[in-house]
Amino acid sequence: MTRKNKRRSKAVLTLLAVAAAVTVLGWLAGCGTTGDQPAPTTVASGDTDAVIAARGLTPDDVYAAVKTYVPTGKKDEYVMFSSGGHSGQVLVIGVPSMRLLKVIGVFTPEPWQGWGYSNETREVLAGGNVGGKEILWADTHHPALSETGGDYDGQFLFINDKAQARVAVIDLRDFETKQILNNPVTTSDHGGTFVTPDTEWVIEGGQYAAPLGTAYASIDQYAEKYRGMVTFWKFDRSAGRLMPDESFALELPPYWQDLCDAGKLASEGWIFCNSFNTEMATGGIEDGNPPFEAGASQRDMDYLHVINLEKAVELAGAGRTIEVEGFKVLPLDVAASEGVLHFLPEPKSPHGVDVTPDGEYLVISGKLDPHVTIFSFDKLKNAIEAGTFSGQDDYGVSIVDFDAALETQIELGLGPLHTQFDDQGYAYTSLFLDTAVARWSLGGDAGAKNPDPAWSLVQKTGVHYNIGHLVAAEGDTVSPDGGYLVALNKWSVDRFLTVGPLHPQNFQLLDITGTGESMKLLYDMPIGIGEPHYVQMINADKLNAWEVYPEVGWNPLSQSKDPNAVAIGEEKVVRNGKNVEIWMTAVRSHFTPERIEVEKGDHVVWHITNVEQAKDATHGFALPNYDINLSLEPGESTTLEFEADVGGVFTYYCSEFCSALHLEMVGYFLVKS
Amino acid sequence: MTRKNKRRSKAVLTLLAVAAAVTVLGWLAGCGTTGDQPAPTTVASGDTDAVIAARGLTPDDVYAAVKTYVPTGKKDEYVMFSSGGHSGQVLVIGVPSMRLLKVIGVFTPEPWQGWGYSNETREVLAGGNVGGKEILWADTHHPALSETGGDYDGQFLFINDKAQARVAVIDLRDFETKQILNNPVTTSDHGGTFVTPDTEWVIEGGQYAAPLGTAYASIDQYAEKYRGMVTFWKFDRSAGRLMPDESFALELPPYWQDLCDAGKLASEGWIFCNSFNTEMATGGIEDGNPPFEAGASQRDMDYLHVINLEKAVELAGAGRTIEVEGFKVLPLDVAASEGVLHFLPEPKSPHGVDVTPDGEYLVISGKLDPHVTIFSFDKLKNAIEAGTFSGQDDYGVSIVDFDAALETQIELGLGPLHTQFDDQGYAYTSLFLDTAVARWSLGGDAGAKNPDPAWSLVQKTGVHYNIGHLVAAEGDTVSPDGGYLVALNKWSVDRFLTVGPLHPQNFQLLDITGTGESMKLLYDMPIGIGEPHYVQMINADKLNAWEVYPEVGWNPLSQSKDPNAVAIGEEKVVRNGKNVEIWMTAVRSHFTPERIEVEKGDHVVWHITNVEQAKDATHGFALPNYDINLSLEPGESTTLEFEADVGGVFTYYCSEFCSALHLEMVGYFLVKS
Repeated sequence: MTRKNKRRSKAVLTLLAVAAAVTVLGWLAGCGTTGDQPAPTTVASGDTDAVIAARGLTPDDVYAAVKTYVPTGKKDEYVMFSSGGHSGQVLVIGVPSMRLLKVIGVFTPEPWQGWGYSNETREVLAGGNVGGKEILWADTHHPALSETGGDYDGQFLFINDKAQARVAVIDLRDFETKQILNNPVTTSDHGGTFVTPDTEWVIEGGQYAAPLGTAYASIDQYAEKYRGMVTFWKFDRSAGRLMPDESFALELPPYWQDLCDAGKLASEGWIFCNSFNTEMATGGIEDGNPPFEAGASQRDMDYLHVINLEKAVELAGAGRTIEVEGFKVLPLDVAASEGVLHFLPEPKSPHGVDVTPDGEYLVISGKLDPHVTIFSFDKLKNAIEAGTFSGQDDYGVSIVDFDAALETQIELGLGPLHTQFDDQGYAYTSLFLDTAVARWSLGGDAGAKNPDPAWSLVQKTGVHYNIGHLVAAEGDTVSPDGGYLVALNKWSVDRFLTVGPLHPQNFQLLDITGTGESMKLLYDMPIGIGEPHYVQMINADKLNAWEVYPEVGWNPLSQSKDPNAVAIGEEKVVRNGKNVEIWMTAVRSHFTPERIEVEKGDHVVWHITNVEQAKDATHGFALPNYDINLSLEPGESTTLEFEADVGGVFTYYCSEFCSALHLEMVGYFLVKS
Repeated sequence: MTRKNKRRSKAVLTLLAVAAAVTVLGWLAGCGTTGDQPAPTTVASGDTDAVIAARGLTPDDVYAAVKTYVPTGKKDEYVMFSSGGHSGQVLVIGVPSMRLLKVIGVFTPEPWQGWGYSNETREVLAGGNVGGKEILWADTHHPALSETGGDYDGQFLFINDKAQARVAVIDLRDFETKQILNNPVTTSDHGGTFVTPDTEWVIEGGQYAAPLGTAYASIDQYAEKYRGMVTFWKFDRSAGRLMPDESFALELPPYWQDLCDAGKLASEGWIFCNSFNTEMATGGIEDGNPPFEAGASQRDMDYLHVINLEKAVELAGAGRTIEVEGFKVLPLDVAASEGVLHFLPEPKSPHGVDVTPDGEYLVISGKLDPHVTIFSFDKLKNAIEAGTFSGQDDYGVSIVDFDAALETQIELGLGPLHTQFDDQGYAYTSLFLDTAVARWSLGGDAGAKNPDPAWSLVQKTGVHYNIGHLVAAEGDTVSPDGGYLVALNKWSVDRFLTVGPLHPQNFQLLDITGTGESMKLLYDMPIGIGEPHYVQMINADKLNAWEVYPEVGWNPLSQSKDPNAVAIGEEKVVRNGKNVEIWMTAVRSHFTPERIEVEKGDHVVWHITNVEQAKDATHGFALPNYDINLSLEPGESTTLEFEADVGGVFTYYCSEFCSALHLEMVGYFLVKS
């Protein structure tokens, strides 16, 4: 095996040919040395026992290990779409392995996926400009998968930006963002995104009250001039776009709207948004006022906003809206007088409002009340129809009598926040202050699926610090799957190795198979990017993403063939005065052309097509000193445009490893000055 | 448990107090319901067996599961610092769990950690401007942990940007980037960063040849005017900064330099960089020339650059350098004539050069040669001293006779790339085309530690597609740990659920305990952000990061108390003409002040101190419509500065969940227009 003679030239040249063949054949066939054949078993059970002993694993640990481990080549059962929090992105995570499969660039430029560098992706990001100003970050909160009949259909994902009141649309064929829109009516949102059961409307509820249209008004004029809002974005499924001209907002009192949920089945056509700071505190701790945290927590009750969406749409269609910054707004007095909007008292500093899978109940969690409060939609509707009101608020909105709509309350513990559901008639509520997940039984037909008494607390399982949201498999649809639940813990404190004063968050996976007191903690997943807020978990079988683009020359923004797609042999460089236009191909492992010379000051338009059709044969395109990096997936065609304002010699190169000769996939860009 | 009466006001107010107390005490004590007490065992072994059967796990799978699972609250043994590839960042990953602990913002703004939004972080990013132009992405390749005596010391991490020839310094006390520098001599790098055994020098080798100083020269003048380079950055450990004035580059022929490694122990004081494209191909496929991939692969041998760093430093100190763009450069003719630079032939299209732990051998992997070529440093040095040369290249550099320096060659398989080492005298080489890891035995004293014959191939283990680099625990130091090895696979093809045409990469963890043919695949980790290039793996015990900043009011850039730190009670807003300066505190859960009003057009300077001292009590600071988000870790003080150019009412708020009343941590910023 050892030899000292020099290597022979012929042998090496043959190797180069073999290398190319092995590479291409192996990749195209999608098989290799660790391909589909299971490896022979080489481990004796004694070895496994020795590892368990040496690592001090308990029987619970071993159970959790085999419950979550996904061997090479096997796939996860579920996919979580997680808000990336203040990263502005979306995280895609496999369950039960809790592995991060992808970060989707949404509101923030993401160079490794070329997000924000090509003309097409810049156009999407520019949709999120606020008053003409580039905003290149976001505070993403609530992802919403598109639904058909109240069930996830795996086609689209929506997500909001709390900081700037924006919404984005992601196409799950290629997991790329296609649209970002700014809500011109307000400056922050929170109760979004949520969808109606057939995704006709995407809901975006406001958060902090401000003058509509981002106008200025003194804080002294809070009650008169500041307003809340909820916006209904019309979604065109075939275009894959939100339609601003067919959308409208509903003006609300300057309470701080929080989470929303759409009615389903029994309650379809209705929207529920809760609120806090009905005290209308305006802060001012520096002047001796109570700080917001106290000022906004005085009252025992805030108001659930009960919205008749069908009626709102009807009024908007009948021209009862006004325009704010070019956007249709249904005024508060119209909404109040026409029965679009009613209030229902809800305790206290409410955070979550979650509609049960059958649409019959609304579960309210007031974070400063140890109960969940359960309203019957049927009772609520009857009360509205019968006019069983306890009064009106200062803005003329009728307040439905609390007891008339109440089904029951269940004491769960300290700091209830959010609720999800499973397939056995259980509900799961996060308890922030108890740092626990409460399993409780629903009443009605759903609750009869499990052996526990209706409307009763069944088990509380400790999780780690500061659980915010939680998610169960398809746990907010009309047909939850059960099996897995994830606690989205905001702090991690001592769970992981210390990586500096900024600690990761902690997603904890729980086993919720079984009934009664059977919930088990399975896995701690550190979240080392952003602070996820809410997550949805979809059965992986419902996703049907493209492995490569359908056709060579594909434009991911139009989802059709690009008119500037370049085929091999058609590459060219055309100069027209100060404009230089380039049509280039990329293939393993060269760009054509490999030399491009322009004059300093030229305007450059550069079309690139990755002509590959093999899965995973992505090419990058880095252009040094011009702040450009693209990612061209197999079949993708894209365009970039810039001023050649820096003189010198630069090597554009493939920045995504593509073959043994990847380092040689390069060209010279000369800017003569 | 169920009740229908309304909740009582007093009970709720008490709860609020309890909530605060529970929160603070629980957090400060660092314990909770799932704290340090192990949970009682609830799982019968039959349950575990049932899960194994239901999930179809093999005995190998179960071994891998228990070998990699890290239960809640237990810590990983190793930490990997991974290049984030074209994300421009660094990934921090725990081993053996393969969990992503953190993404460190380096070259690319990262809003969730406030990276690129405060004055301090903008200053660091501005250090990476190229010719005055902002470059807000990078293609990070090779992270290098600081070393003492050739062993990782856990203090600093360096990383390069291939696309723009930049280097960055990360302080591992807080895992934050402190410095970015652009190399003004060239436009791309690759052979960096690597450190000398005591981190006196950080090495940055070039990649694609270009005129020095990023000047323009026609491609026809390639041989005369284009040049390669390697740069030696002087590191001041006490300042934690690279010192440009004490650094210098070495001018090299216009071959494409690739990877470098520093000598250690026996070879300390020497630097080794390999190269390809000694053919000096200049591309031009569009004009009928061979493409780079073929043109740069013609010759059987390229040149290992053997650099006497001590002599280079001596000559630089003696004023033998010239200046290029204000940076010291030791000219090629001086280096060649003074014995700083020698070439050693190396087969073929070499990629990795790796010095053995004892410093006695250099392992060369030519990606188009099936062998690793092993040179003896002793023989090499003797040959240089004896003048055993086979000639000179066109630039007057002496070429050491290949056979005079050769120790041996070992045939491993197709496409060898990189080599790492363990504690048992084994070396591990990645085989790109075989998609395998080869374990082979060293010779000499090291090789005697294992039962296998010296200089022999021991085992090849299949991994998945396109292994590039690989890393073993402390596997490039003077004292590797063994135990774990990770294959950095560039494609994932069919290993994971499809998440669109852009697939993740795949890190595969291997068990390298045992001798002989005992290597086992343990775990597949998808990399869903960037394309990592190289990784280093350090024993977690060597890291000693801060859990909170040492003192309230800490400035992370100066790593000392900030002169504008704000204590509680000292908050203020001071107007001076058009300048408004704010001193603010952040604490659970309010900002002080809560109302700030300025005039449109004012210049705003805003100092914020997070006065918390509890672990993980980070506060965010989002300022809507002004494209600002900060992350203030416990104790941190920071400053931001902007023009109030957008009129309206905006709510700054805490964007990192901090308490039950986090949503109420908000203030009004009014810009009167």
